[in-house]
Amino acid sequence: MRLLLTGFEPFLDYEVNPTMPIVEALNGTQIGEYDIIGRILPVSFKEAQQAFVELIEDIEPDSIISLGVAVGRFHITPERVAINMRDSNEPDNDGNAPQGEAIRDGEAPSYFSTLPVQEIVDTLKQAGYPAKVSNTAGTYVCNTIMYEGLHYAATRQIPSGFIHIPANFDLAIALGNVPGWHDRDLLATIQIAIETVLKTR
Amino acid sequence: MRLLLTGFEPFLDYEVNPTMPIVEALNGTQIGEYDIIGRILPVSFKEAQQAFVELIEDIEPDSIISLGVAVGRFHITPERVAINMRDSNEPDNDGNAPQGEAIRDGEAPSYFSTLPVQEIVDTLKQAGYPAKVSNTAGTYVCNTIMYEGLHYAATRQIPSGFIHIPANFDLAIALGNVPGWHDRDLLATIQIAIETVLKTR
Amino acid sequence: MRLLLTGFEPFLDYEVNPTMPIVEALNGTQIGEYDIIGRILPVSFKEAQQAFVELIEDIEPDSIISLGVAVGRFHITPERVAINMRDSNEPDNDGNAPQGEAIRDGEAPSYFSTLPVQEIVDTLKQAGYPAKVSNTAGTYVCNTIMYEGLHYAATRQIPSGFIHIPANFDLAIALGNVPGWHDRDLLATIQIAIETVLKTR
Amino acid sequence: MRLLLTGFEPFLDYEVNPTMPIVEALNGTQIGEYDIIGRILPVSFKEAQQAFVELIEDIEPDSIISLGVAVGRFHITPERVAINMRDSNEPDNDGNAPQGEAIRDGEAPSYFSTLPVQEIVDTLKQAGYPAKVSNTAGTYVCNTIMYEGLHYAATRQIPSGFIHIPANFDLAIALGNVPGWHDRDLLATIQIAIETVLKTR
Repeated sequence: MRLLLTGFEPFLDYEVNPTMPIVEALNGTQIGEYDIIGRILPVSFKEAQQAFVELIEDIEPDSIISLGVAVGRFHITPERVAINMRDSNEPDNDGNAPQGEAIRDGEAPSYFSTLPVQEIVDTLKQAGYPAKVSNTAGTYVCNTIMYEGLHYAATRQIPSGFIHIPANFDLAIALGNVPGWHDRDLLATIQIAIETVLKTR
Repeated sequence: MRLLLTGFEPFLDYEVNPTMPIVEALNGTQIGEYDIIGRILPVSFKEAQQAFVELIEDIEPDSIISLGVAVGRFHITPERVAINMRDSNEPDNDGNAPQGEAIRDGEAPSYFSTLPVQEIVDTLKQAGYPAKVSNTAGTYVCNTIMYEGLHYAATRQIPSGFIHIPANFDLAIALGNVPGWHDRDLLATIQIAIETVLKTR
Repeated sequence: MRLLLTGFEPFLDYEVNPTMPIVEALNGTQIGEYDIIGRILPVSFKEAQQAFVELIEDIEPDSIISLGVAVGRFHITPERVAINMRDSNEPDNDGNAPQGEAIRDGEAPSYFSTLPVQEIVDTLKQAGYPAKVSNTAGTYVCNTIMYEGLHYAATRQIPSGFIHIPANFDLAIALGNVPGWHDRDLLATIQIAIETVLKTR
Repeated sequence: MRLLLTGFEPFLDYEVNPTMPIVEALNGTQIGEYDIIGRILPVSFKEAQQAFVELIEDIEPDSIISLGVAVGRFHITPERVAINMRDSNEPDNDGNAPQGEAIRDGEAPSYFSTLPVQEIVDTLKQAGYPAKVSNTAGTYVCNTIMYEGLHYAATRQIPSGFIHIPANFDLAIALGNVPGWHDRDLLATIQIAIETVLKTR
């Protein structure tokens, strides 16, 4: 079985994207029955969506976990829901800042994550890592990717979803006043999340 | 035309619910073409939903604005979306703490607010009040009420939605370490929000 | 009796300094036995200190209250102590960023405020305004001014000190993600603080 | 040479005190020329001060580093200054809540840390750990211990000071909404801090 794990390139002023070392570390490894296929997405509404849809069509994954950094958060936060909305005050890496547009006109207003979000949170906390379910993936590129993964998953009944992680220490040092985690712990939590998806299939 | 404006009773440890003086001040007044009908809801999943549905059936409002306090926020935040989900770590005033249940089985996964959320934010900022659109009304009683208002509005094409307000100064003093606003300013922002709904109909 | 009330010019990226309208509103008024003499200081270690010392020598005040904005705070915070230290990561309006230097070589390592800080806090809370004593005025220009006022006060046994206020709504809107208060409330709290100084003399 | 390293017992509602495993791990080890003598202090103004003074008289340390947890912080924060003040809204483990009292009547109003606080911060950041100098150790038991260590150090010209650390993951999970660090990283930063004290003697 193939699990597609995606991260993002650096974006806005952030010099580092803490999702990259996680995706690179797990790409090509096997966790239980999953062959992990790791890919990095651009931080652009148009390019990320297009690249992600092509990846999905190409790989035909049996499960999808997309990662993004949520600067300012200090829990691992599996996202509960993706909404059919793009809205951004700040332009993406292509200079686009959509205002209140649908991701897919006429499609579902939202999709709930098909990952076992509460079980992931519970397992992480038992393993000693602060975690909680988040009720918003925002309206930026992260939410678009989560929506696309769930749109694909909707017809195939596969586990798909998005997990926001805190800044890592490097990014926290660069930004000055946000909480950070060690890369080692960020990586460990995603491994645990993948194992939890396997156990609850 | 009738605008139903709802607030909540005090809840959890909070001694004061800053929505109450707003609803009481505007109840019975007229703003433009709207007769404001103000009502206070209990903070209980079951009772609030039932009371709110009865109010709607009884009043048959032409517009609905529900208010809740979001302790810790320091902007006026019109909510963008209500999701078909109840989930609470903390029991409501009846002692219920639902875990990941649908509000209405088999109904829409979410509804977008039919209030002009971006226009309300822009108008408030022009009037000197910090405001921004929020992407989550949580999964507690507030979200349930917002979902119910939009479920009703869906078949009638009326403006309906939810606005979270900061703690007022009294609640901020009682809690000790959260931001607060003066009641006078909280009231002023809801009047402006109602006027903006009127202008954009 | 003369009470010297100082505020600051705008600084760093902040377009507005919320201390200015307070100082301008109270300059020339009388509160109890105090004639309020309001002055605005530059945001430069060197110029602010020099201008402030000259003001004190010129006015020979019977009491000193200096105001500064503490972006991010959401209480009125009378400062407890000024320390004999300048240290700044960010340059002042003159481009100076001193690193761990004494304000006055060989002088007292710190001075406690001679304002009735706890009484000011208690009176403000009774009047409905969130307030608490702060234990640090930082190591930037605010602390330097507070230290200088207390250095002068030390030989004259007069009430002197510093009060940090939150951003006002305008500054909060400009910065986007910080709490703010209405200018009206910021002004009211400083009037109450001055009255409290009078009552406890 | 003897370095006295102190931590605290659990306090208030906090089930865990993250300083304890650090002190226990380093007690009896040698770092460079330092024999580390680790001790745990009670969280009581009276008992902690008395126990600490007795420890100092008994051990006659050549350097002192005291540790405390600052719930809510997410940097390692060497403290710049201790002030001659006890003030607490919340009672200590003995039920005492002093209001604006001197720690030592008639003694210095404050002492600056004689640890190389800026060098510790710089070294930690180079090693990948978020750190910054803090300008307040508060007015609770932590500040009292820091003041006492510096009072002792003042006549002996030895390095002495206090370092506040973030909550660890366990405490963050218990409290629910505060940032935490892994115990492993907290321990690593204190080892680096001790090495930095050695290098800059």
